[in-house]
Amino acid sequence: MGEHNPLLDIALRLEVENLYARYADCLDHGEFKDWPDFFTEECTYKLIPRENHDRGLPLATLAFESKGMLRDRVFGISETLFHQPYYQRHIVSGVRVTGEEGGHILAGANYLVIRTKKNQPSDLFNAGRYIDRLVRSNGRLLFASRLCVFDTELIPNSIIYPI
Amino acid sequence: MGEHNPLLDIALRLEVENLYARYADCLDHGEFKDWPDFFTEECTYKLIPRENHDRGLPLATLAFESKGMLRDRVFGISETLFHQPYYQRHIVSGVRVTGEEGGHILAGANYLVIRTKKNQPSDLFNAGRYIDRLVRSNGRLLFASRLCVFDTELIPNSIIYPI
Amino acid sequence: MGEHNPLLDIALRLEVENLYARYADCLDHGEFKDWPDFFTEECTYKLIPRENHDRGLPLATLAFESKGMLRDRVFGISETLFHQPYYQRHIVSGVRVTGEEGGHILAGANYLVIRTKKNQPSDLFNAGRYIDRLVRSNGRLLFASRLCVFDTELIPNSIIYPI
Repeated sequence: MGEHNPLLDIALRLEVENLYARYADCLDHGEFKDWPDFFTEECTYKLIPRENHDRGLPLATLAFESKGMLRDRVFGISETLFHQPYYQRHIVSGVRVTGEEGGHILAGANYLVIRTKKNQPSDLFNAGRYIDRLVRSNGRLLFASRLCVFDTELIPNSIIYPI
Repeated sequence: MGEHNPLLDIALRLEVENLYARYADCLDHGEFKDWPDFFTEECTYKLIPRENHDRGLPLATLAFESKGMLRDRVFGISETLFHQPYYQRHIVSGVRVTGEEGGHILAGANYLVIRTKKNQPSDLFNAGRYIDRLVRSNGRLLFASRLCVFDTELIPNSIIYPI
Repeated sequence: MGEHNPLLDIALRLEVENLYARYADCLDHGEFKDWPDFFTEECTYKLIPRENHDRGLPLATLAFESKGMLRDRVFGISETLFHQPYYQRHIVSGVRVTGEEGGHILAGANYLVIRTKKNQPSDLFNAGRYIDRLVRSNGRLLFASRLCVFDTELIPNSIIYPI
């Protein structure tokens, strides 16, 4: 990371892991109103099928470009989108800080989201990888961009909550 | 955690990850007789449905309050509980050290336990989160309390081995 | 690991996690041609059912003993082995550095590989543990040996890509 101080590299890596853990906790606890606060005002959040991402096709299942749009989504989840509630459980592994570019820290990880509906067994809901750009603001790391590139086909219409 | 030495915070976080990895190894290898030694003499181990935990309902699927009770459970697993053996595989992510309280280190993580029965495909057996209180004793971290709060319904009666 | 400098232990542990993350990325991206470069020239790569490993039986589902054999496997995957392509997604947890022996760093982790076939839901493809021997070469960690000891029965013939 150009710092040449190994302790700083280690501290950054663990800070990113901590950010990912807090993000997962927020969603797994269903505290969707806090979700936009993980992002900068102008930001990108996209949920993209892997096939589209790998081919450079722009079509995303969800695409939001500001914190305001994220808040609208949360309102939709809470108030207008008809859906059966379900639990999410995020398992995140292979967290990596891969570099810096244009003032952003580049990072990523693999993820698996397990879904549990009432009175049903848990299932593999969505698996894929996070591709992130992070910035530091008032001492906290925020997402300038989070792409969720998912392997799992067949289920995009049923994704109600953020991944 | 109040140490103001970032290296100590980092060392503690990695020590907790290591504890969780050794705990998982113990159970995944089926070395149940070693499982009570991860706990203090007086201790709490509970397996609780998420719905009960979130509503503050005390009803737990399993609840043990001492190392002796944990040893009784291990005896039961080995000698008296009728069950078909199965393999467990723990996947633990999002390990966090969140603070200190009353001499305990507060920590937690998300977990997924994969079960494999003889001649059957692996399945998602139990997913949830660990909520832990740790103490240091003779240089080792021990569990004063481990709550396993699980999302997965429908399966509690079939949980034989510790999670 | 005998260094008596906690920062070195921490740096090694995070370096091993990074190696595991890069290895998973390579396979999850389907960049199989790069896979042999994670290994030393003379090396061991085995995929072994847990039951055989635990009983000390030598029978492995796959067993390669040199980088050349790994390259042959990659050629087979690309050119000769008939199979329906599928996506892999590795989730790795509980990374541990457990010691040193004969110039090798001993390490391991639990893993879960999720498979996604075209137009099918994702499934639990293979769960198990990695048992590794690592060596440092020109500043990089390489696998002198990687054993993938898998719990999951019933599916070995359908394993085409490396785990």
